Amino acid sequence: LMTKLPDTGISIFTHMSQLAVRHGAINLSQGFPDFDCSPRLVALVAQYMRQGYNQYAPMTGVAGLRERISAKVEATAGIYYHPETEITVTAGATQALFTAMATVIHPGDEVILFEPAYDAYAPSVRVFGGIPKPVALNAPDFAIDWEAVTHLMSPKTRLIIVNSPNNPTARVLSDTDYRRLVEILRDNDCYVLSDEVYEHMVYDGVQHRSAMHYAGLRERAFVVASFGKLYHTTGWKVGYCLAPAALMAEFRKIHQFNVFSVNTPVQHALAEFLNDPEEYLELGAFFQEKRDFMLEALSGTRFRALPCQGTYFLLADYTAISALPERLFCEALTEQRGVAMIPVSSFYSEETNQQLVRICFAKQRQTLEQAADRLALVS
Amino acid sequence: LMTKLPDTGISIFTHMSQLAVRHGAINLSQGFPDFDCSPRLVALVAQYMRQGYNQYAPMTGVAGLRERISAKVEATAGIYYHPETEITVTAGATQALFTAMATVIHPGDEVILFEPAYDAYAPSVRVFGGIPKPVALNAPDFAIDWEAVTHLMSPKTRLIIVNSPNNPTARVLSDTDYRRLVEILRDNDCYVLSDEVYEHMVYDGVQHRSAMHYAGLRERAFVVASFGKLYHTTGWKVGYCLAPAALMAEFRKIHQFNVFSVNTPVQHALAEFLNDPEEYLELGAFFQEKRDFMLEALSGTRFRALPCQGTYFLLADYTAISALPERLFCEALTEQRGVAMIPVSSFYSEETNQQLVRICFAKQRQTLEQAADRLALVS
Ligand SMILES: CSCCC(=O)C(=O)O
Ligand SMILES: CSCCC(=O)C(=O)O
Repeated sequence: LMTKLPDTGISIFTHMSQLAVRHGAINLSQGFPDFDCSPRLVALVAQYMRQGYNQYAPMTGVAGLRERISAKVEATAGIYYHPETEITVTAGATQALFTAMATVIHPGDEVILFEPAYDAYAPSVRVFGGIPKPVALNAPDFAIDWEAVTHLMSPKTRLIIVNSPNNPTARVLSDTDYRRLVEILRDNDCYVLSDEVYEHMVYDGVQHRSAMHYAGLRERAFVVASFGKLYHTTGWKVGYCLAPAALMAEFRKIHQFNVFSVNTPVQHALAEFLNDPEEYLELGAFFQEKRDFMLEALSGTRFRALPCQGTYFLLADYTAISALPERLFCEALTEQRGVAMIPVSSFYSEETNQQLVRICFAKQRQTLEQAADRLALVS
Repeated sequence: LMTKLPDTGISIFTHMSQLAVRHGAINLSQGFPDFDCSPRLVALVAQYMRQGYNQYAPMTGVAGLRERISAKVEATAGIYYHPETEITVTAGATQALFTAMATVIHPGDEVILFEPAYDAYAPSVRVFGGIPKPVALNAPDFAIDWEAVTHLMSPKTRLIIVNSPNNPTARVLSDTDYRRLVEILRDNDCYVLSDEVYEHMVYDGVQHRSAMHYAGLRERAFVVASFGKLYHTTGWKVGYCLAPAALMAEFRKIHQFNVFSVNTPVQHALAEFLNDPEEYLELGAFFQEKRDFMLEALSGTRFRALPCQGTYFLLADYTAISALPERLFCEALTEQRGVAMIPVSSFYSEETNQQLVRICFAKQRQTLEQAADRLALVS
């Protein structure tokens, strides 16, 4: 079999989570909460199942859910997406990203992405015969060198992938960043895939700006969001994609043959739950408290935390602790100290080592306290 | 935007279901039951959600579910697939089919499929740059011309897609069919994608044979199955794929970037429900009764039913009623007579008309009786 992904092995999230289980370590690696979702949301799914909502949902998503998504986006971001033609419910954000790539990438097309990057982007590009063109960003500030992007642009550039708030850097793209992107795209036949799954997790008054806010981006952008991140239900696998009607029509052609539709009772439950905006408007404050606890805890260790503007991850430098490269350090820390994290090198396609780890703080206070105690002992 | 699927519009299933709703017609078009799944299965999902199984499942599927699938396949088909390396849980059978195609099809590869065919096959092939090579089968017996297949084989042939029991023809591949396929594949670097989602719906003692039963196929086959069909939960979107370890390793690389994982509480519930084989062993008798009712009912109309060996569909000829081509006939029947069916021409890539409609009989007795009454009036 001629493999499409010769360099892909087991994902770092699976690897570190398995290692954490094996060694009984506290798992701050893979991005998921160790606390539960709202019991009311669970009750709603159970109710819709009992009421018999157990057959195929419409291919585009349950109508009521698309309407509530439209209302939420308008209320929080001030932009209107039409529920009939511009919104599609997906089997998680990952399926939305994969399907958007399938929609626009033809063999030989180039795709610009910024590294460190979520590990799915580059291999997904390759599945469709595209060529990833990574732009490396580096600690401490991970600023985008827009000149470098300009030089990378070619008639073959078909897509630029942005992710803000960013996993793993915890940075948020600024207004200036978006304006530079608008300029660069002005005369190009190039699309934008904007992964905004951490949209509500921004801290210290930092503002999340979406690609949809910029003329010159909105018309060519797929914006991807996740109910798993929004409602602490990463295991339910429901997200959505927003795009202008013409783009969305093409996206749906692929979506219908990829998964056809998404879990029906969960969609009905989410539609009803979305009526209550408090549930997601409190998300920033909820996670900021966890971030603050973790920053405070790390200040008492030999780890040095980098600034965290958003997401439920933060980066920490361990130069003062060890000369091991990142992956070996993470494995040793899991095995010997009982705390699992993700090596930042896993988010680059080229070999790198910046002595940085990614810490997920979407955990109960007690878990974070226990982890802090263990990390304080690492010298 | 350069579209990958210029000929794809709204699917015939969505079109006919929407038309049925608009005209208050009885919907015998899209394949889903109008009765509910087991309340015990619903209670299990609710229980696992309440117990907090709401975060990411393993990428390959919940271990307990893979083990139960392995046991079921061994018990019913007599073949062992290893749960660790040869079974992956998918977001419905459709995602398994799409991902298997993504795994083996490279641009320019040829894919042999038999028409009439499930409408997703050919466009999915095209998404990956493959070239569908349809072999047309025709009424009344839809027998495969294996000579024609032999002549179509080329060094570029990468995949053959089979579907037995077959949607829409309701035919089951014979031992002779499989032996011819084995012969044809003997010296070719070609894979098999075997869509067996109707495996338990076979009638009159007809035996379902799986690709896994044939040396020469098993080593190169992806076998796809569906819990939606098995347990009357088409809206939950959980299925699975079986393949030998080397093939499955490649499948999983794509799967992990397409959807990463599948609904966690549903997987746990299915694992527990699978302990009770009665639930699926009774499926054949359950649907045979419905088929028999429908055949009997049609014998009192001017429709002429074709033989139905399996699936929950049957074909009927309406030559005695109308000279309209199939799609127009189905639309008129929905609008004027209040019964929706699927034109068989939708399952061919070339224009065809055999005066045939597909009828879904996965419906309550009362629905079938009502439909029968309406159809008896059509002259
Ligand atoms: C889909 S597994 C990875 C979860 C996640 O978003 C992360 O850890 O980065
Ligand atoms: C995924 S919608 C189509 C359902 C089905 O299997 C059919 O009607 O053929």
